[in-house]
Amino acid sequence: MEGKAVQQEKENINHAELLISCPEKPGIISTVSNFLVEHNANIIQFDQHTTDPHAGMFFMRIEFDLKDFDSSYGKLEDNLHTMARDYSMDWQLTSKKKKKRMAIFVSKEGHCLKELIWRWKSGEIPVDIPMVISNHPDLKEEVEGHGIPYYHIPLSSHTKAEAEEKQLELLKGKVDFIALARYMQILSPDFVSKFSNQIINIHHSFLPAFIGANPYARAFNRGVKLIGATAHYVTDDLDEGPIIEQDVQRVSHRYTAEDLKIAGRHVEKQVLAKAVSWHAENKVLVHGNKTIVFT
Amino acid sequence: MEGKAVQQEKENINHAELLISCPEKPGIISTVSNFLVEHNANIIQFDQHTTDPHAGMFFMRIEFDLKDFDSSYGKLEDNLHTMARDYSMDWQLTSKKKKKRMAIFVSKEGHCLKELIWRWKSGEIPVDIPMVISNHPDLKEEVEGHGIPYYHIPLSSHTKAEAEEKQLELLKGKVDFIALARYMQILSPDFVSKFSNQIINIHHSFLPAFIGANPYARAFNRGVKLIGATAHYVTDDLDEGPIIEQDVQRVSHRYTAEDLKIAGRHVEKQVLAKAVSWHAENKVLVHGNKTIVFT
Amino acid sequence: MEGKAVQQEKENINHAELLISCPEKPGIISTVSNFLVEHNANIIQFDQHTTDPHAGMFFMRIEFDLKDFDSSYGKLEDNLHTMARDYSMDWQLTSKKKKKRMAIFVSKEGHCLKELIWRWKSGEIPVDIPMVISNHPDLKEEVEGHGIPYYHIPLSSHTKAEAEEKQLELLKGKVDFIALARYMQILSPDFVSKFSNQIINIHHSFLPAFIGANPYARAFNRGVKLIGATAHYVTDDLDEGPIIEQDVQRVSHRYTAEDLKIAGRHVEKQVLAKAVSWHAENKVLVHGNKTIVFT
Amino acid sequence: MEGKAVQQEKENINHAELLISCPEKPGIISTVSNFLVEHNANIIQFDQHTTDPHAGMFFMRIEFDLKDFDSSYGKLEDNLHTMARDYSMDWQLTSKKKKKRMAIFVSKEGHCLKELIWRWKSGEIPVDIPMVISNHPDLKEEVEGHGIPYYHIPLSSHTKAEAEEKQLELLKGKVDFIALARYMQILSPDFVSKFSNQIINIHHSFLPAFIGANPYARAFNRGVKLIGATAHYVTDDLDEGPIIEQDVQRVSHRYTAEDLKIAGRHVEKQVLAKAVSWHAENKVLVHGNKTIVFT
Repeated sequence: MEGKAVQQEKENINHAELLISCPEKPGIISTVSNFLVEHNANIIQFDQHTTDPHAGMFFMRIEFDLKDFDSSYGKLEDNLHTMARDYSMDWQLTSKKKKKRMAIFVSKEGHCLKELIWRWKSGEIPVDIPMVISNHPDLKEEVEGHGIPYYHIPLSSHTKAEAEEKQLELLKGKVDFIALARYMQILSPDFVSKFSNQIINIHHSFLPAFIGANPYARAFNRGVKLIGATAHYVTDDLDEGPIIEQDVQRVSHRYTAEDLKIAGRHVEKQVLAKAVSWHAENKVLVHGNKTIVFT
Repeated sequence: MEGKAVQQEKENINHAELLISCPEKPGIISTVSNFLVEHNANIIQFDQHTTDPHAGMFFMRIEFDLKDFDSSYGKLEDNLHTMARDYSMDWQLTSKKKKKRMAIFVSKEGHCLKELIWRWKSGEIPVDIPMVISNHPDLKEEVEGHGIPYYHIPLSSHTKAEAEEKQLELLKGKVDFIALARYMQILSPDFVSKFSNQIINIHHSFLPAFIGANPYARAFNRGVKLIGATAHYVTDDLDEGPIIEQDVQRVSHRYTAEDLKIAGRHVEKQVLAKAVSWHAENKVLVHGNKTIVFT
Repeated sequence: MEGKAVQQEKENINHAELLISCPEKPGIISTVSNFLVEHNANIIQFDQHTTDPHAGMFFMRIEFDLKDFDSSYGKLEDNLHTMARDYSMDWQLTSKKKKKRMAIFVSKEGHCLKELIWRWKSGEIPVDIPMVISNHPDLKEEVEGHGIPYYHIPLSSHTKAEAEEKQLELLKGKVDFIALARYMQILSPDFVSKFSNQIINIHHSFLPAFIGANPYARAFNRGVKLIGATAHYVTDDLDEGPIIEQDVQRVSHRYTAEDLKIAGRHVEKQVLAKAVSWHAENKVLVHGNKTIVFT
Repeated sequence: MEGKAVQQEKENINHAELLISCPEKPGIISTVSNFLVEHNANIIQFDQHTTDPHAGMFFMRIEFDLKDFDSSYGKLEDNLHTMARDYSMDWQLTSKKKKKRMAIFVSKEGHCLKELIWRWKSGEIPVDIPMVISNHPDLKEEVEGHGIPYYHIPLSSHTKAEAEEKQLELLKGKVDFIALARYMQILSPDFVSKFSNQIINIHHSFLPAFIGANPYARAFNRGVKLIGATAHYVTDDLDEGPIIEQDVQRVSHRYTAEDLKIAGRHVEKQVLAKAVSWHAENKVLVHGNKTIVFT
């Protein structure tokens, strides 16, 4: 679901979210829910998934309210460490009071960027946007008009390492995750490793079809009857990272390659915006090369 | 999701499902999960929903495995009564060992009936089908060919009460719920009251548009660009019962009223089949005039 | 199809579109195509529809290129009058050189307005936008930032007639059609009559379900599993005019009434934008209370 | 559109369909429509497509009624040869009086077969079905129950050539096209060449993703959020032939590989049935490795 964020924000300032991944073990739901009860947490939403109830991995997402939030939250966080150790849990606790900080990377095409900004302004994507970084100056005015700093870092094959260094410097300590809103450059493994499962890309095809460059031209040549878009976390393997969301749109023999590109923009922007809001709301867990999305 | 039933059946003969509805109360997830742990139940799937975390209604569905099923199940069931009383819970416990028994009501058009039978034979709808009842003889051979008894009970406006009496006699003690697979008769309030939230109808429109007779003709006259189908529980208000599932299909000015009817059949059969399998798998809870569907 | 406009504009400055409605008559395709051949027109795209091949109404849309456009177009237009008289044709001939002029009416919510402006700027909706008219000042800055004049005409139940007079004065001679981009006022029959089949409204439900006010609240109360949006021409009967386009989005029991409203915005903006671009490209013909859309 | 066939059959026994492919040439619509007028044909439906209006290929499909059908049809067919030669046309003229004859090839899984048979019996797919051929005996009873001959031709890697010989002998002169309804064998180039663009396969993925074996297992491993099915003409390149129709269904992390397979069956059967009915109604033209589908 999209947009949940809006009214939650209004209603719940004592709100937090807990994500847990661990090996499956009997009684784990009981253990965690008891832990929350003991800390005066009231569960608002509880989701779980197991890859195999007898010997698999277990994933959990809990939204809860906390009485006396300011005094209780720290204690709850401290005690989580102990429980997590006993159960070999990976966990992430997030207070709604602190929004995630998202950088947007973009090249020349602005449709995905604009959709993200619009949903951010309307409260649908609960993030702060400390900066937009681009290898082109084209969208500077648009972005700055919304009060967001725009950094133009030109980039050629020779200057890529240098450009990434500048980018990392800007991002350092200021950004939790990155949305690649049609950023037409491949990030280096070094860059990616610094934001593991924290970079969301929109690929303009229904992956794994048409990995790589020019997917619409190739879709046109193949004569597909649906075109698609895929939002995924970036890994070192091009367009092979964990898929967060996909969608398609029907096309016909009447569409030229250019028409596919135009029609596809509307799928791209919706798919990226959904993936980004789910990530911002801590609804996505990564397991190997796949995602669990608790919508 | 459809079809989950198939492999679960194979894998889990110690499997049970618990549905709970009750007023929201802090700690309820903890209470129920502790209860299950104490009875040696291992939770496979846990879903919950609350209409308002502070003062609403709480809904829960738990699939679990039980060690020493035959000796433990009875005890667990007994103790549920106590917990349920303390928490004002409505609950329903179902063992996978005992399939629900579904009667199918049909008139002349067989597409929904055939889809249900096909999914039943392929294991997707985990029910027994003790009988098909029809006001017409047309589908007798088809149904009996699958080894299902077919009862032809003719029905006119004058003989409706009498016909329903016969139907009820046939159903008595043999059937848990009824699928109206394009049964073109309105059931009496008396009949409906005997199967409260246990009669699933498929209406051939996107409710609440086109309530009542001839929805495709009216959709044609209105010039809609999508036609739909709605599966809902039957109540005394025609086509106003809790909606379980809906879907649509795109149409255009090229479709005649007859074309709409033909195209609509494929939506109808899919929507009814989904609703029926969710009901059979205890995935649907009713709250007032709405449903919570844990898919 | 959306977006066709973009490359057509680039490629075809000798381009025109002919729409014809008339009683069905044998040989009509032959007659019209011969007429075009005689005037040195080269057909690019030809679509037709008949409500009944023997006694119905016939609808045709032809895109064509014209050699020596400037000298030929006038003659072709003149001679159309003669042919149209002989065949009782309603027709409309449009040169691509002259874009339609669209006014946008809006109240406070900007999502549909922004989508229209974005698609206009990216070349997907081939119109001029001489003005935006609103009963609120909220979107003034946004609109003027794109270089479009914004007229704020406040409106209460007492001042409606007066406000419409002001609106009509602004529109007079400057506008071909109007897009109501979530304009939350009902236009008077007098106003509507001045723009017959030239006012496109977006209704935030899947018509004919939830005609009138607060469709999302009513969808929430009915417990629907899909929400929708409908773009239609405005007539004197509220939400009863010819439907141009509809679409839906899946929702679940998790959606609050507010969530439905938020999720619905994305359907609304896409549906309105499609309808507006089809109207702008002369792809929509009206027949009684229905549309023929040649996409 | 599906299902158009039903009432057309009832209404139009003087009905024929003409498909034309040729190099683009000015005046071609005029030429063909004049030709039909001269032969007393009344056009019911006219569709055209051009890959490039100035130098591309032109495709046309015309449905028409013919007065004095029995005496006129032969003459019209004769004269088509002359026109076709002058315009380098490939063409195909089909009288509705003569249905296409379709063989169905199937292995063990019956869902696609059953959908085809059901739509055939309900009049949606206007064909004769002279035979079903299978490399397994499993569906024999089912098929023969519908009065269709079932030929079981076992097949191993060693006996493939021999088996295909038997198949071809059975098909010879009795069949116009073949539907592979989950036939899990690869046909030899020799076999394919005998039914060029007359063999329709259903592939259980959204091509070109997951070409080849076990697409659902691979979709599961990739973690896609939509699964799909593709109906295409068979060529010598595995799963690379012209696509006729595709569709998708949303899935989630909850689906096991087996669940994907089960859910996918419903997409497969719908997609294959649509493609087959369009082919049966002469709505599909092939151009290189792509299709033009006039729905």
